[in-house]
Amino acid sequence: MDIYKTLREEAFEANMEIKKQNLAIYTWGNVSAFDPGKSVFAIKPSGVAYDKLRPEDMVLIDIDGNIVDGVLNPSSDTKTHQVLYREFTGIRGVTHTHSTYAVAWAQARKSVPVFGTTHADHGTEEIPCTEYMSPEAVKNNYELETGNLIVGTLKQRGLNPVHANMVLVAGHGPFTWGNSAAQAVYHGAVLEEVCKMALLTLSLDPLTKPLPEHIIHKHWERKHGPDAYYGQR
Amino acid sequence: MDIYKTLREEAFEANMEIKKQNLAIYTWGNVSAFDPGKSVFAIKPSGVAYDKLRPEDMVLIDIDGNIVDGVLNPSSDTKTHQVLYREFTGIRGVTHTHSTYAVAWAQARKSVPVFGTTHADHGTEEIPCTEYMSPEAVKNNYELETGNLIVGTLKQRGLNPVHANMVLVAGHGPFTWGNSAAQAVYHGAVLEEVCKMALLTLSLDPLTKPLPEHIIHKHWERKHGPDAYYGQR
Amino acid sequence: MDIYKTLREEAFEANMEIKKQNLAIYTWGNVSAFDPGKSVFAIKPSGVAYDKLRPEDMVLIDIDGNIVDGVLNPSSDTKTHQVLYREFTGIRGVTHTHSTYAVAWAQARKSVPVFGTTHADHGTEEIPCTEYMSPEAVKNNYELETGNLIVGTLKQRGLNPVHANMVLVAGHGPFTWGNSAAQAVYHGAVLEEVCKMALLTLSLDPLTKPLPEHIIHKHWERKHGPDAYYGQR
Amino acid sequence: MDIYKTLREEAFEANMEIKKQNLAIYTWGNVSAFDPGKSVFAIKPSGVAYDKLRPEDMVLIDIDGNIVDGVLNPSSDTKTHQVLYREFTGIRGVTHTHSTYAVAWAQARKSVPVFGTTHADHGTEEIPCTEYMSPEAVKNNYELETGNLIVGTLKQRGLNPVHANMVLVAGHGPFTWGNSAAQAVYHGAVLEEVCKMALLTLSLDPLTKPLPEHIIHKHWERKHGPDAYYGQR
Repeated sequence: MDIYKTLREEAFEANMEIKKQNLAIYTWGNVSAFDPGKSVFAIKPSGVAYDKLRPEDMVLIDIDGNIVDGVLNPSSDTKTHQVLYREFTGIRGVTHTHSTYAVAWAQARKSVPVFGTTHADHGTEEIPCTEYMSPEAVKNNYELETGNLIVGTLKQRGLNPVHANMVLVAGHGPFTWGNSAAQAVYHGAVLEEVCKMALLTLSLDPLTKPLPEHIIHKHWERKHGPDAYYGQR
Repeated sequence: MDIYKTLREEAFEANMEIKKQNLAIYTWGNVSAFDPGKSVFAIKPSGVAYDKLRPEDMVLIDIDGNIVDGVLNPSSDTKTHQVLYREFTGIRGVTHTHSTYAVAWAQARKSVPVFGTTHADHGTEEIPCTEYMSPEAVKNNYELETGNLIVGTLKQRGLNPVHANMVLVAGHGPFTWGNSAAQAVYHGAVLEEVCKMALLTLSLDPLTKPLPEHIIHKHWERKHGPDAYYGQR
Repeated sequence: MDIYKTLREEAFEANMEIKKQNLAIYTWGNVSAFDPGKSVFAIKPSGVAYDKLRPEDMVLIDIDGNIVDGVLNPSSDTKTHQVLYREFTGIRGVTHTHSTYAVAWAQARKSVPVFGTTHADHGTEEIPCTEYMSPEAVKNNYELETGNLIVGTLKQRGLNPVHANMVLVAGHGPFTWGNSAAQAVYHGAVLEEVCKMALLTLSLDPLTKPLPEHIIHKHWERKHGPDAYYGQR
Repeated sequence: MDIYKTLREEAFEANMEIKKQNLAIYTWGNVSAFDPGKSVFAIKPSGVAYDKLRPEDMVLIDIDGNIVDGVLNPSSDTKTHQVLYREFTGIRGVTHTHSTYAVAWAQARKSVPVFGTTHADHGTEEIPCTEYMSPEAVKNNYELETGNLIVGTLKQRGLNPVHANMVLVAGHGPFTWGNSAAQAVYHGAVLEEVCKMALLTLSLDPLTKPLPEHIIHKHWERKHGPDAYYGQR
């Protein structure tokens, strides 16, 4: 019996969603699903095309980065996922893509201001862009340090990773997370759309100011506050 | 016997059209269909994915905002629809989406000038963008006040809602309406395309002037005037 | 026996191609096919959705603008097609769309410079944008005068309509033609792509200069000159 | 027995991939597959639509440009492919398209800076744009001189064609190559995506600087260096 069957399937389904939501061409994305009870996550194997991917190809990794099960090499970004699961208590899914507009913001090294309610429905703060990684960190352990860079960026800005679940790694691209692998991909799709909307907004008016605080908080609260009334309960 | 069967189906079909016309990702849109005889409208339930939506999921609301029939929570934007049906006599459908280019204009808080005949075929005036809602209005009743904001913006500009059926809510996005739910979605698609054309026009020449009045009115009249000759009669 | 069967089918197929090439949403486009032997053209009926269109719906019009056969109203742009067939000897198809990037150039009232070989493969000159139509011309006969405006613009620039088969009507959009209805639509698709490429080119460098003459002519000659060697013979 | 069956099929499959990856409309692209043992390459026939293309239509050309087998005219760009196979030892596939964003950079005559890791995953240097071809070279032999222009541009910049497998021909568009016809198309798709990301990056900040060298090299090495750990081995 495969005790990781559900986790593998959750990770597989979420990886296939990357393609459906047009968040990557070829193999340029990866998703993992975390089981906090077992302290293990299932992640996409490295460089395998989405149309050849099968649930049984998912690789199982423990919280210390050891391969628990699987015959293929895990995603080269595995250590970044590992750091996020270790540091961001409560998250159960991580997604990395090279979606076009999010990458453009990451390459321009700009955090994405809260220009509208589409953004505020998913977060009250600008989506942070990290600094470039130092030569020392790159030499040390690039993927692990990418995780540290993300964690440090959120800490420095006082952001709670349960609510702030999107980041741009400078010169690289987006990482998002959530309470499931599916939600992590959803946040990847939201980020791409928000990045496109924000770029177009600036092309209409480069001096556009962020949405006023009272509207930001209203939209956040109606979806995520104690008296939230969006969706079905 | 379900006396609301036709209304539910009309609302359902129109909501599905949002997806076909690419006006929203996930659940980011909602359409309602109004029956003036019964003073009741059918609206999409809140946060339900389009591919799981069924005609029987539509929620029936009366003109005072009471749920008449339905087990799911109605769209969180229901009160905005309610205000528009109450204030804009003659309309029978309302659509709200987060379509990308319309949101960009709403976030830049710019009304869309009549740059061409694509716009003039559907309206003679620029598509108005509202002011931001005040903190007091947000606190009072956000969705109802969104309706008031739209109504007030049209009044202030002297626009007749029978002919001017598109608006951008500042920092939020587009609301459109029409003589049926289907037409309301059609106006949502027109608005998105007009917003994209207008943004690209400004990227070619930021000082582009609106179309001369005599061409605007010719295009409006040939589709909507007393001697209209567009389409089949 | 229907002596117009082939012409109807040619026009029908070409109209359906507008949708396949994404040159219009809804009914925002029309194509006609001309038979010079009969001096008659078949054109799309006005305001009929592409997915409901049938070959037998095409309306037959003679060179003087009279309806020869058909029960539906012809496209509201019929008189523009009529003028082009009358004035541009040798053409057998005309297409009008509201394709997004071509409309943007028409709204910005800019002729499209020959920035690259994609353009030069299809024409050696910039794609002309007309002036706005005068109030008198609009009052007189708008669609007929649109034809005159196109004809006048080509004459003024000394362009031969056999080779220069694309134009932008200021504030409106593209008209293209060719030696068949299918080729007229092909030119509509080429124009849209060339307009998109040219807009993106200017966003990279607003001072981009046109391609040198010797490259323009080489590309034109290898496809259209007496010693053309592109394609199968 | 057809000794070129495999080569024809490889070329055919790769040409069909152009359409799947949206790298060209109509027939605006061509791919060839090279067999170094036979010194022969299979290439798309000129001007044949992708949906009518069959493996047996591929034309076989030897390294000196002679037709070895096939009844159709080969691509008008055949001599450019020939020069690249002769000069770039080790490559086995060449692709030429008119993909939109790559053409925009070629028309603006700008080399594409390494703005991010998407680019660095596939090359450590900016993607070079050639000069315009001289009138003499155009007169002499346009397609052969296009090959010489590409070869000269790489030499001048000291680029190794085994690693630098993408180029923009000024005013024309992209040529890419690889260790198979399939990889040549892959590089064409990468180039298009990188060009889009870079253009959007500059629209956010026209003064964006390239990625620091230590990150560029890390990304290149993890995919292509002696200790590469991306993908399956």
